[in-house]
Amino acid sequence: MAKKITMIGAGSIVFCKTLLSDILATPALEDSEFALMDLTESKVRSMEAFAKRMLKDNRLPGKVYATLDRREAIRDADFVVIMIQVGGVEAFELDYKIPLKYGVDQCIADSLGPGGVFRGLRTIPVLVDIAREMEAVAKPGAIMLQYSNPMAGNCLALGKASKVSFVGLCHGVQTTLDLIAGYCGVPKEEITYTCGGINHMDWFLRLEHRGRDLYPKLREVFEKPEYYKNEKVRGEVFRHFGYFMTESTGHLSEYVPWFRKNKAALDLYCDEPSFGGESGAYYNWCRTVADKYAEHDPLLDESTKIERRSVEYCSYIMEAVATGKPFRLMGNVRNDGYITNLPAGSCVEVPTFADGAGLHPTFVGDLPPQCAAACMTNINVQILAGEAALNSDPEHIVHAVAMDPLASAVCTLKQIRDMCSEMLEAERMWLPRFQGKRISPKPTISIPKGCRPVDVPLDPALAIGKRFGELVTRKTD
Amino acid sequence: MAKKITMIGAGSIVFCKTLLSDILATPALEDSEFALMDLTESKVRSMEAFAKRMLKDNRLPGKVYATLDRREAIRDADFVVIMIQVGGVEAFELDYKIPLKYGVDQCIADSLGPGGVFRGLRTIPVLVDIAREMEAVAKPGAIMLQYSNPMAGNCLALGKASKVSFVGLCHGVQTTLDLIAGYCGVPKEEITYTCGGINHMDWFLRLEHRGRDLYPKLREVFEKPEYYKNEKVRGEVFRHFGYFMTESTGHLSEYVPWFRKNKAALDLYCDEPSFGGESGAYYNWCRTVADKYAEHDPLLDESTKIERRSVEYCSYIMEAVATGKPFRLMGNVRNDGYITNLPAGSCVEVPTFADGAGLHPTFVGDLPPQCAAACMTNINVQILAGEAALNSDPEHIVHAVAMDPLASAVCTLKQIRDMCSEMLEAERMWLPRFQGKRISPKPTISIPKGCRPVDVPLDPALAIGKRFGELVTRKTD
Amino acid sequence: MAKKITMIGAGSIVFCKTLLSDILATPALEDSEFALMDLTESKVRSMEAFAKRMLKDNRLPGKVYATLDRREAIRDADFVVIMIQVGGVEAFELDYKIPLKYGVDQCIADSLGPGGVFRGLRTIPVLVDIAREMEAVAKPGAIMLQYSNPMAGNCLALGKASKVSFVGLCHGVQTTLDLIAGYCGVPKEEITYTCGGINHMDWFLRLEHRGRDLYPKLREVFEKPEYYKNEKVRGEVFRHFGYFMTESTGHLSEYVPWFRKNKAALDLYCDEPSFGGESGAYYNWCRTVADKYAEHDPLLDESTKIERRSVEYCSYIMEAVATGKPFRLMGNVRNDGYITNLPAGSCVEVPTFADGAGLHPTFVGDLPPQCAAACMTNINVQILAGEAALNSDPEHIVHAVAMDPLASAVCTLKQIRDMCSEMLEAERMWLPRFQGKRISPKPTISIPKGCRPVDVPLDPALAIGKRFGELVTRKTD
Amino acid sequence: MAKKITMIGAGSIVFCKTLLSDILATPALEDSEFALMDLTESKVRSMEAFAKRMLKDNRLPGKVYATLDRREAIRDADFVVIMIQVGGVEAFELDYKIPLKYGVDQCIADSLGPGGVFRGLRTIPVLVDIAREMEAVAKPGAIMLQYSNPMAGNCLALGKASKVSFVGLCHGVQTTLDLIAGYCGVPKEEITYTCGGINHMDWFLRLEHRGRDLYPKLREVFEKPEYYKNEKVRGEVFRHFGYFMTESTGHLSEYVPWFRKNKAALDLYCDEPSFGGESGAYYNWCRTVADKYAEHDPLLDESTKIERRSVEYCSYIMEAVATGKPFRLMGNVRNDGYITNLPAGSCVEVPTFADGAGLHPTFVGDLPPQCAAACMTNINVQILAGEAALNSDPEHIVHAVAMDPLASAVCTLKQIRDMCSEMLEAERMWLPRFQGKRISPKPTISIPKGCRPVDVPLDPALAIGKRFGELVTRKTD
Repeated sequence: MAKKITMIGAGSIVFCKTLLSDILATPALEDSEFALMDLTESKVRSMEAFAKRMLKDNRLPGKVYATLDRREAIRDADFVVIMIQVGGVEAFELDYKIPLKYGVDQCIADSLGPGGVFRGLRTIPVLVDIAREMEAVAKPGAIMLQYSNPMAGNCLALGKASKVSFVGLCHGVQTTLDLIAGYCGVPKEEITYTCGGINHMDWFLRLEHRGRDLYPKLREVFEKPEYYKNEKVRGEVFRHFGYFMTESTGHLSEYVPWFRKNKAALDLYCDEPSFGGESGAYYNWCRTVADKYAEHDPLLDESTKIERRSVEYCSYIMEAVATGKPFRLMGNVRNDGYITNLPAGSCVEVPTFADGAGLHPTFVGDLPPQCAAACMTNINVQILAGEAALNSDPEHIVHAVAMDPLASAVCTLKQIRDMCSEMLEAERMWLPRFQGKRISPKPTISIPKGCRPVDVPLDPALAIGKRFGELVTRKTD
Repeated sequence: MAKKITMIGAGSIVFCKTLLSDILATPALEDSEFALMDLTESKVRSMEAFAKRMLKDNRLPGKVYATLDRREAIRDADFVVIMIQVGGVEAFELDYKIPLKYGVDQCIADSLGPGGVFRGLRTIPVLVDIAREMEAVAKPGAIMLQYSNPMAGNCLALGKASKVSFVGLCHGVQTTLDLIAGYCGVPKEEITYTCGGINHMDWFLRLEHRGRDLYPKLREVFEKPEYYKNEKVRGEVFRHFGYFMTESTGHLSEYVPWFRKNKAALDLYCDEPSFGGESGAYYNWCRTVADKYAEHDPLLDESTKIERRSVEYCSYIMEAVATGKPFRLMGNVRNDGYITNLPAGSCVEVPTFADGAGLHPTFVGDLPPQCAAACMTNINVQILAGEAALNSDPEHIVHAVAMDPLASAVCTLKQIRDMCSEMLEAERMWLPRFQGKRISPKPTISIPKGCRPVDVPLDPALAIGKRFGELVTRKTD
Repeated sequence: MAKKITMIGAGSIVFCKTLLSDILATPALEDSEFALMDLTESKVRSMEAFAKRMLKDNRLPGKVYATLDRREAIRDADFVVIMIQVGGVEAFELDYKIPLKYGVDQCIADSLGPGGVFRGLRTIPVLVDIAREMEAVAKPGAIMLQYSNPMAGNCLALGKASKVSFVGLCHGVQTTLDLIAGYCGVPKEEITYTCGGINHMDWFLRLEHRGRDLYPKLREVFEKPEYYKNEKVRGEVFRHFGYFMTESTGHLSEYVPWFRKNKAALDLYCDEPSFGGESGAYYNWCRTVADKYAEHDPLLDESTKIERRSVEYCSYIMEAVATGKPFRLMGNVRNDGYITNLPAGSCVEVPTFADGAGLHPTFVGDLPPQCAAACMTNINVQILAGEAALNSDPEHIVHAVAMDPLASAVCTLKQIRDMCSEMLEAERMWLPRFQGKRISPKPTISIPKGCRPVDVPLDPALAIGKRFGELVTRKTD
Repeated sequence: MAKKITMIGAGSIVFCKTLLSDILATPALEDSEFALMDLTESKVRSMEAFAKRMLKDNRLPGKVYATLDRREAIRDADFVVIMIQVGGVEAFELDYKIPLKYGVDQCIADSLGPGGVFRGLRTIPVLVDIAREMEAVAKPGAIMLQYSNPMAGNCLALGKASKVSFVGLCHGVQTTLDLIAGYCGVPKEEITYTCGGINHMDWFLRLEHRGRDLYPKLREVFEKPEYYKNEKVRGEVFRHFGYFMTESTGHLSEYVPWFRKNKAALDLYCDEPSFGGESGAYYNWCRTVADKYAEHDPLLDESTKIERRSVEYCSYIMEAVATGKPFRLMGNVRNDGYITNLPAGSCVEVPTFADGAGLHPTFVGDLPPQCAAACMTNINVQILAGEAALNSDPEHIVHAVAMDPLASAVCTLKQIRDMCSEMLEAERMWLPRFQGKRISPKPTISIPKGCRPVDVPLDPALAIGKRFGELVTRKTD
């Protein structure tokens, strides 16, 4: 009973190759059939050729084919892996550069903020279409493994629009665990932990090494410059909120209002280079890589040797479903009561088990209230962006960005509206469902000199107070 | 069956006199027994004397007495009306002036922001004590009518700490309705409306005059300078969010991040005098009034004539309970599922009926998502302030203010922590449960020149990308 | 702004005349336009003629017309009143007589049990169609006032199938209150009460006369033969469960398993004539009335004088909506969290307010657990009957009746299945959506003599116990 | 980091020995420390001696000791295993024999019905005490593994009374899976399944062999006498409800009203010997075993050889916690939203994972409505029995049994009350918290001949109908 595994966005060659290698390194999956799908034929053909070499060189029984037809790729699939980037580096440039003109200085710009909102607007309709196709032609119970950002926003919208079984996947938890293990000097495998929150803001609620709480040690080292320096923003949130979480400094600095709203804050907390907080760090990296790949296909030189499985959850989930042996991950799922102080229907990242019967997110309960509050400011944006995308409602684009912690700390409502309008016009080619719709302008209402306002009733409390005051005044004057 | 009505904070003479007059103007309540309680004997005695004159001059059968003993005042009460202000104008001065030093420029400072948080810290323990006393000695089913600010924060904490029947009352809905009626040129009595949200941010979800939607007219006039000028901030939120709400400009400008975080915004939106957005408008007004009253007791000159009932809900609720004739109000209550996209257990302002069986809040359902999101940013603060007050937890004070939309748009986390610490020290005399507790400082971690950060594992995505990039570079260089 | 009031099933002349008279006795409604609709032209024409005489004789400005076209009757309606009986007395005869053959002896047979389930199967699709038509052509916010039984089952299905605003109405609360007032010797108007539960099983959770609990008095009189005799079954449930409720003896005896499952129980508790528990009491009454009306139209002799308004809620609700003056009733509504220990989405009867903004059911909280449990046995049937009706699923008919407290106390599963099958075949003409569907028979599996069962694994606990037992036996034998 | 494992009720030697052997067969647990506790010293000493021999003979590093002091046994425990039987076979005899006098003929009598209710009343207070002791002196996060019946009733009460981490364990799922595997002819290990429901009524919602639905095959064989004969009652429920479940015929026949309420039903469905449906089958078995063990200690002859691990979940859960390797079981847990159409706070049996972070029940969603309805009739009893036990409320004992599907099909309310009263008096020695409390009698109210009932108001519908009828009669007579 070989599995059919569909890779949507297989032209993301680096990431696709990683997952492919992981899956082929898994005995229970080595006879899988891979359908590689992308809109860019050259890339998907290159990927197909490489995958075929991998199978042949490693004498594996699996099969692979490429296609531009997404529905056909999905037909009879057991798993559909999503790694699309709608609009590519071109759209990304707009996501970063237009907000910068309005003072919204993003470091990564793919998850929240104006950049994250517009990435979501481009991506969500495609994900919903894929989910519909899965409902129509994939195997019953087929699972979507969703890797595209904005993770939480995408998955929130997916969870509203479709009943398909899906999980949003990220390696933030695994890499943070590496960091914790290193900082505390204990083997990662011996750490018992529970996370709860949202993607990119998932809090370590329990963190133990063989029954001993690791938090005292972690707090201790984070006061030391040589540790703190690596993660200033994450360190500050840890110091002030009391819990450590999964997002690294550059990215986290965008999700909260305290670190990059002005130069003083940037200088104090976001002064490390690149992903340490630099303006446009991720865009610059992507542009550089894209330019290099445009000149030369990296797969031509890549070894077909199957390596040790990476930390990505993808192959482990598939293995658990195929073998029935349970695997535990932190998955992004629709909040069906798992985190009790975050909204039902939002997307939360919680301990999730995979096994023969599919995906099983588990109950976390209440987050510490300060952690829930911080998540909530992000979920506000995700809900509104989801509404904007699912209903093609341009007003909700403005509302989403108006709720963004960084943009709202920098701009007025009018500036936010103007910025969104400019972005919508610039990115129209990737937003076909907004055709014929625009964000209506709300120009400043200019008040002529000497304008007499219309009468309004006096507030009764003030009125009474005023009368009393006058009484007193009459008497005391 | 005369009712016993207890007034806590009866030294708030202006407001107490208004409610008293309303109640005495109500036939079903004119034989009530009033227990007036305050900590300041002179004021409560003055109030008592005035009330006695009112009863006598109007030949009413009611009875009145003053006491400093709160528990005795509450004994056998049917209704307990709360109008306390813990710390008075002295504490209020600190609520306004300390934050101003940190750049947090408040206009009213009694509901959210650092001022609202500390007013809540001072008030909540007293309210909880009153609720406990009601559970112990008031009539079964006695109702608390709670008028003290921060309304939503106070009521949220009350709803967590006690099962006593209570409702938070404000006249924001009534005065906004006056404004709407005036702007639209229709009689207030003929408007059918439903509100939903939180106190001071309660959205008109339905607004009709004899079956005709009033919103088009309201939108039209708000584009005209002579209407807009009266309510710039409320007007902007209306224009950008699409729904009108109950909070006036000066107050609303504090609850959201867009209007008073810097001079440009202040100049554009908060440039009308006093409650139109001026810095410290409410504090200045209170100080002036307090100074006047200190010189001369205004009740000495006040007429004892019973006037037409005011818009305050208080006497109408008591009348409904006494007569069984239902009365509809917008009440602040614990969210037991009334607004489905705001957290259970938060305090919401929703259509509520009073009748012989008590208080009956009603189901509203989902708010429009942008309205819910805006409320949620305020509820974040209220939840954390409530946790701080109920558990005397100084860290949660910091968390509450860190979530404040205005403070977080202005300050860094460290500045917020320092500001809270300064306020806690200055207001200790009114915060007895924080005795022996302080906000621990989190000084800036200074990184010595040349500090070498400890090694951290490379993010796997970046690692792979890096390797590929190098491959390509090797080839293409 | 005259209201348009649509009466569906206006051929129910007695009831229709009562409601019409109530409405015309209400000043705010006397200019209403009435659309009378029924499938039986003669009856609806007779009703129309009578209504026209009423308007004329009382010099009222209202208008009335009759139609057989339901959609047209509903067009632009403000209120749609439902008083249909699908299948009439003919179907009712089958509802009563077929179950009787299987030992299920019903007294009323219109709300639960096989009779109630089949009445629901006939009615629900019609109600859903009406709701769809209201969504399509009635005024926005139009309200359905639903009087047809099975009340709870019908409304449960309506609440699942449509978002139209509706309330199920019954006079059980009002008449029970009359009974209580009489038994306790206090004026009905002075009783303060709260009910919570389901229609026909709504418990008095609070019952006071001017602040004094009426329960002790009620308990006292119910131990006296002259009071108990009137309501034996209701009295027993009161004695054993501790709360009084809205259903009278004959009807209640069908909803619970203790009173009419065998002759001994019938003789002890259901021995009063007619609605006191007699077999087929309601069917016999309906048949008698129907026969009389067939011979002679009672409206021909009826006075057109407008009488004092009856206890029916209908005209009071309409008045509250028209005037904005709130009215309190016990309404049957979808359980959106009102009763916290009954299922969300079931139909509950709770305090509900009507006013200018429509219908507002209110929060009750947990019922006493024994009351909730009794309601739950009925809700089980209602949910399954609703599923059967909404999905035309014949298996769920069997499941619904299998859960019925009375039928399940009398029959085996096979008997229940056979009974349902016979009823479905007999009533097909009123169940068009079950065309082509039947209840599959499950004949008794006969086990031939000497049949050797296949091997099954031994239960491990028994296996071990057995082994130990043998050990011991070996030793001790 | 050896684990401390506490066994409460270790005098249940057969079962205790099984679990002990399982644990010692688990490498990760072989160094555990066992605290064996029981109230009967002789038995626990015998168990201790046997356990010491096991450790020695198998050269294992574990340690064991016996104690009569429960609190000490629990101190520092990682796991507390419960296998108590309060009142032993003596109380059990009353649970079976008293109801039989009232016509309630139980086969097993330990889970629902009067027997199950009273077993719960005896057991719940002890479980709650143990939970309190765990909260006080066990390791933080210690897990209770609860094996005592009535499983669902006990765990429901535990979940209300304590926040301790617990899971109720049973082997019903495992043995049913053996049966299914045998009937369908596929290896148990290859079956993918999901269950949802309550203990002893847990429905197979998904049942597949390598992706193929097993239900068609299972339905087919259950129509054949040689298969059906083994499980008549379970077979009938399967045939009529469409889903297979975990309870075997004798036990299931007690939980539902259709199979043993009268002789005809018993003859048809409960005619196989012993656990196939015989009256008092389990009591007779327990009595026989107890008598044998009284004569001779079976452990004296038992081999100390460690055998293959049994199907009991106990050792697997402990292994998962100790190693972090996830294990999947069907666990009985508090319903925190796992089954959406069963009440929150009831006890449900759902897929649950154990791992290093403890127990993780998972979301099932809605059960098929007929399955939920059947579970609900049992949960009704469990909730009321739990209230009776937790509040020592004798009325709720009556309510619990009044809701029992079997007792209510057989008895009147009065008979149920009398039966409960007799049981309470007979079992007082094991119900110390009911001291001074009794079930108040409700004697039959005898109505003297010629008793004239007090007047009651006529139902308005009947009144109007009556008047119309008279009108017609006058005309037509």
